Amino acid sequence: MSTAKGYAALAPKAPLQAFSFERREPNDDDVVIDIQFCGVCHSDIHQVRDEWFPGIYPQVPGHEVVGVVTKVGAKVSKFKEGDRVGVGCFVDSCVHCQTRDENAEQYLPGLTQTYNDRDASGQPTYGGYSDHIVVKEGYVLSVPDNLPLDGAAPLLCAGITLWSPLKHWNAGPGKKVAIIGLGGLGHMGVKLAHALGAEVTVLSQSMAKKDDALRLGADHYYPTNDPKTFEALAGTFDLIINTVSAPIDWNAYLSLVKVDGTMVLVGVPDNPVPVSAFALIAGRKSLAGSMIGSIKETQEMLDFCGEHNIVSDIEVIDIKDINAAYERVIKSDVRYRFVIDMATLKG
Amino acid sequence: MSTAKGYAALAPKAPLQAFSFERREPNDDDVVIDIQFCGVCHSDIHQVRDEWFPGIYPQVPGHEVVGVVTKVGAKVSKFKEGDRVGVGCFVDSCVHCQTRDENAEQYLPGLTQTYNDRDASGQPTYGGYSDHIVVKEGYVLSVPDNLPLDGAAPLLCAGITLWSPLKHWNAGPGKKVAIIGLGGLGHMGVKLAHALGAEVTVLSQSMAKKDDALRLGADHYYPTNDPKTFEALAGTFDLIINTVSAPIDWNAYLSLVKVDGTMVLVGVPDNPVPVSAFALIAGRKSLAGSMIGSIKETQEMLDFCGEHNIVSDIEVIDIKDINAAYERVIKSDVRYRFVIDMATLKG
Repeated sequence: MSTAKGYAALAPKAPLQAFSFERREPNDDDVVIDIQFCGVCHSDIHQVRDEWFPGIYPQVPGHEVVGVVTKVGAKVSKFKEGDRVGVGCFVDSCVHCQTRDENAEQYLPGLTQTYNDRDASGQPTYGGYSDHIVVKEGYVLSVPDNLPLDGAAPLLCAGITLWSPLKHWNAGPGKKVAIIGLGGLGHMGVKLAHALGAEVTVLSQSMAKKDDALRLGADHYYPTNDPKTFEALAGTFDLIINTVSAPIDWNAYLSLVKVDGTMVLVGVPDNPVPVSAFALIAGRKSLAGSMIGSIKETQEMLDFCGEHNIVSDIEVIDIKDINAAYERVIKSDVRYRFVIDMATLKG
Repeated sequence: MSTAKGYAALAPKAPLQAFSFERREPNDDDVVIDIQFCGVCHSDIHQVRDEWFPGIYPQVPGHEVVGVVTKVGAKVSKFKEGDRVGVGCFVDSCVHCQTRDENAEQYLPGLTQTYNDRDASGQPTYGGYSDHIVVKEGYVLSVPDNLPLDGAAPLLCAGITLWSPLKHWNAGPGKKVAIIGLGGLGHMGVKLAHALGAEVTVLSQSMAKKDDALRLGADHYYPTNDPKTFEALAGTFDLIINTVSAPIDWNAYLSLVKVDGTMVLVGVPDNPVPVSAFALIAGRKSLAGSMIGSIKETQEMLDFCGEHNIVSDIEVIDIKDINAAYERVIKSDVRYRFVIDMATLKG
């Protein structure tokens, strides 16, 4: 066992505060990681505040984890001390299965979340708002050498959340892709879809983020508070990725999808949203959902980001400012992702 | 011009009555068809009663048309006098396009419906509740010799409406397919999915249609009024086709879809239905829609039905009983499709 320093919510809806806890002694297949940065995901806030499902407390959030390997178990072959690595949203997949489904493991019922979950032995998992973490080799990712670790942290959740549907629904040359919402998820969607060769349109509420969108790689930008946008873009897109968790009118956006096109949800509104059957039937359209990605896909995404020099646009914060940062995330007041500098925890 | 005898609604919501009207003189690319049978589709009732969009009156419904060729234009090469043929839901596709999209023409904006529409010259189209029809060669289908014309009539709409999504989403050996609702559409879905080699489950409100479902080719039958059905079948199906236009809880049925599976809507509820993003996101599932099929697909379906001796289960009626038949369709009191014997119009 080793004592870890971190930040936790001690009870549902409690603010985060300094918290010490035990990490397991590394097993033969474990990697010990000195955490250098951890991204702040909106879902951290939902889980800390017990908004999705009954949470486990004390809760140490954080699933956009990057750092350096300090120790490896005897049977670890992929990593060695000093390697730059990352950990994403899960640290084990179906513990009941003999083999991993490399292409869809994130959807299997036995997934162990990086925090707010229990591992195979029944112990609670604690996330990346902490100084170190112990993770099975098979759930550790390599971070390419040319990527700065702070900007790379959000790739582990925001990046893969967009990469997986872009790849699954074949975004690439000749394809018209729209991204709804330019936040932590959306700005990664623009960068990745652009690098994949797709023609990228950003659909954002107002004109406020136009310059940013074009700088990030968008080819086009339309404000959705203007009804003319929906006339001008009717039947345009092969793929729309909706990163917005506000309950916008999905039917209006489905009208912008081509025959045989798809709109993929990666944001989760609090309540069900009314869908018109005709909006789907009139063009053999699909409304789909996508959730993070497999470890295999995540490594592919990181390698792609290394080749294309893609990281997240971030604002680095001191962990003592995390509660204020949460309030700013809720107000969408960040371009585009907070990343905690874990040196501020150790200092 | 030729005078046709038919049945029409003279005004929105009016009952159908005998009606005479003019068909165009056949052009070089036209086929003249002596109509022998015409199926009764629920959408005939919606359109006659002006429930979907402002209709054109007098309105002669009918888009499950079968008969025998009596005359062909000078440039017609695919058909000759005496051929057994059918006409489905549309008699022209995009008149603005130079080439037809053979795989998705039913979704193009320029489609001309068989009735309740206007053709390229602006004349109203009149459907198959009539003694003859004049149709462009490219929109006429061959009916295999071994199929009885009365049972074949519903293939032109009910048949293709199920065939197109079954083929598009790869129903076949090794695939688990569920059909929601065992009516005019659903019973064709069971026959076609079974003949395609899929493992077929019928999901129907009560146990009332179990024997029929198994006789039609279903491997399994579950009543949806029993909550245990939803527990027992969670995550089971590659493909669910929902033929029901009642506003059932789509989220509950999405829970029966496998990871990467699809639920396809072919029925259209009157109002939007609430959809939970999580129901889609938690398994990369898709909710899609499908509408009839292209002429190419319709011919493939008819040829397949010829090879497998598939027709619709029907009740043949006298056209004078059409208004009573409509009331029975609304009450789902038909197993499984009414077909009008057009000899009763001529007699």
